[in-house]
Amino acid sequence: MTLVVVGSLAFDTIETPEERREGIVGGSCTYCALAASYFASPMIVGVVGEDFPQETIAFFKERKIDIRGLEFAKGKSFHWEGRYGHDPNHRTTVKLEMNVFAGFRPHLPPDYKQAEFLFLANIEPELQEDILNRFENPKWVAMDTINHWIKNNREALLRVLKRCNLFFCNEEEAKLLTEEINLFKAGRKIMEMGPGLVAVKKGEHGALILGKDGVFGVLAHPCEEVIDPTGAGDSFAGGFLGYLDAVRQINEKELRRAAVYGSVMASFAIEDFGIERFKSLKRSEIKNRFLEFKKLVSF
Amino acid sequence: MTLVVVGSLAFDTIETPEERREGIVGGSCTYCALAASYFASPMIVGVVGEDFPQETIAFFKERKIDIRGLEFAKGKSFHWEGRYGHDPNHRTTVKLEMNVFAGFRPHLPPDYKQAEFLFLANIEPELQEDILNRFENPKWVAMDTINHWIKNNREALLRVLKRCNLFFCNEEEAKLLTEEINLFKAGRKIMEMGPGLVAVKKGEHGALILGKDGVFGVLAHPCEEVIDPTGAGDSFAGGFLGYLDAVRQINEKELRRAAVYGSVMASFAIEDFGIERFKSLKRSEIKNRFLEFKKLVSF
Repeated sequence: MTLVVVGSLAFDTIETPEERREGIVGGSCTYCALAASYFASPMIVGVVGEDFPQETIAFFKERKIDIRGLEFAKGKSFHWEGRYGHDPNHRTTVKLEMNVFAGFRPHLPPDYKQAEFLFLANIEPELQEDILNRFENPKWVAMDTINHWIKNNREALLRVLKRCNLFFCNEEEAKLLTEEINLFKAGRKIMEMGPGLVAVKKGEHGALILGKDGVFGVLAHPCEEVIDPTGAGDSFAGGFLGYLDAVRQINEKELRRAAVYGSVMASFAIEDFGIERFKSLKRSEIKNRFLEFKKLVSF
Repeated sequence: MTLVVVGSLAFDTIETPEERREGIVGGSCTYCALAASYFASPMIVGVVGEDFPQETIAFFKERKIDIRGLEFAKGKSFHWEGRYGHDPNHRTTVKLEMNVFAGFRPHLPPDYKQAEFLFLANIEPELQEDILNRFENPKWVAMDTINHWIKNNREALLRVLKRCNLFFCNEEEAKLLTEEINLFKAGRKIMEMGPGLVAVKKGEHGALILGKDGVFGVLAHPCEEVIDPTGAGDSFAGGFLGYLDAVRQINEKELRRAAVYGSVMASFAIEDFGIERFKSLKRSEIKNRFLEFKKLVSF
């Protein structure tokens, strides 16, 4: 159990065509760690302000998430505001307030630095790089990012990417990063930049895992009522990496199963606002949905 | 072997960001019948003008397509002009010239009318209805359409839809027809309109087969070089229906395999302009790609 997740812990303001909600607990690290916690006991690295709810910290502990790498700083937590249109696949970032994340340099507990398995969830590439530098011998590194950093911090991002084994992105990010319209060509170009695997998250269309030797495709779970798509991608990464950490084997078979568990966890995340759905989620539901995914594509 | 395919036979003008091609043989019936011909011997119904190439007619015969329902009329063949952007999933209809299709009322050979299996490919709904009325006892009817008819000939379209077992559409058409944004809700609404099955074609994201008891998802074949996406949907329908006609069984297992063969045939269609790819296509390639689809999703 040595998965370290580095990323944001945040308050989100989310506007959907139906309603507007403020002060929802979110962030890439939050979603990822919670999704991973159904498989492993991730160690998290991040920072929260004085306003971050004790209840969420208690929930992390209940889920056996190791929070020794979580810093409690003076000031306000990171804040993201986003708006979804009628099509939940499209969202606009309305506001981004770094708050305590501005200038954050984490203090890593010594045993964190020996972790074999590191996930650099979406944060500033320079911070991802700084943290990666402080790990002694990570065997397997995954990263995620957003368009904003591809456009504005490309060089730092490429330095981190070069040292990664797996890159999580969505279609738009893959195309922006490579200036390729065809997704498979884009994937190949990304692999030339470093990682041996590219996981392309496609929202309601599922995800593709592109590797040097082939492609694996996983669907999204048929969902009639998407409440809040925020965190789906981070939950995908959490299920994916948490599963791999649990089985402690990275081979084609397990990577495929990991991707399905990623899609399973994403499908739960969107069923309620923020992390609400995880609060009632049972292991048996995860297992059942995994089996539903098998039925969805078997022929 | 009793599949009848009714639809257009046309000249297409196709513009992609790379090139413009005129006088490409296309049409919904053309693509569908050719794709189906790798599984069955479809009987076609349609009309061509004096300009339609003898070479294509000879190719139909070579592929054992029954052309006794094909009318040779005075005048010019149906003409469609479309433009694709950098994203091959988006196309614009630039021009539509009905020519010999205007006022076409087919003469059906008597044995056609006894066919058990009828596909009303995309043409004017009134024509689809007229033809459907003349079949004696079709056991299984499938149909396709486009936005244009949903907007302008809705009532006739709904009358045909009511009598169908399977409705082929793309995401946009499903949403336009039902005014639903969620695809699964849209599918359910369409089923309330008549058909027990809805096949939603999603281009590079594959297809979903929605039924009253569940969902089956098939991916698109990973394609690095889409030459011409025209006819992919009709080839999907052709592979799907041709396979069902060949196995002469419509149950869940065969419907799933039919959808995969649909996706297989669509994946070949886009590898070259017009029907070119079908001219060199071998059965062994179809079988191999079917197996590749298995590997693509197995976990």
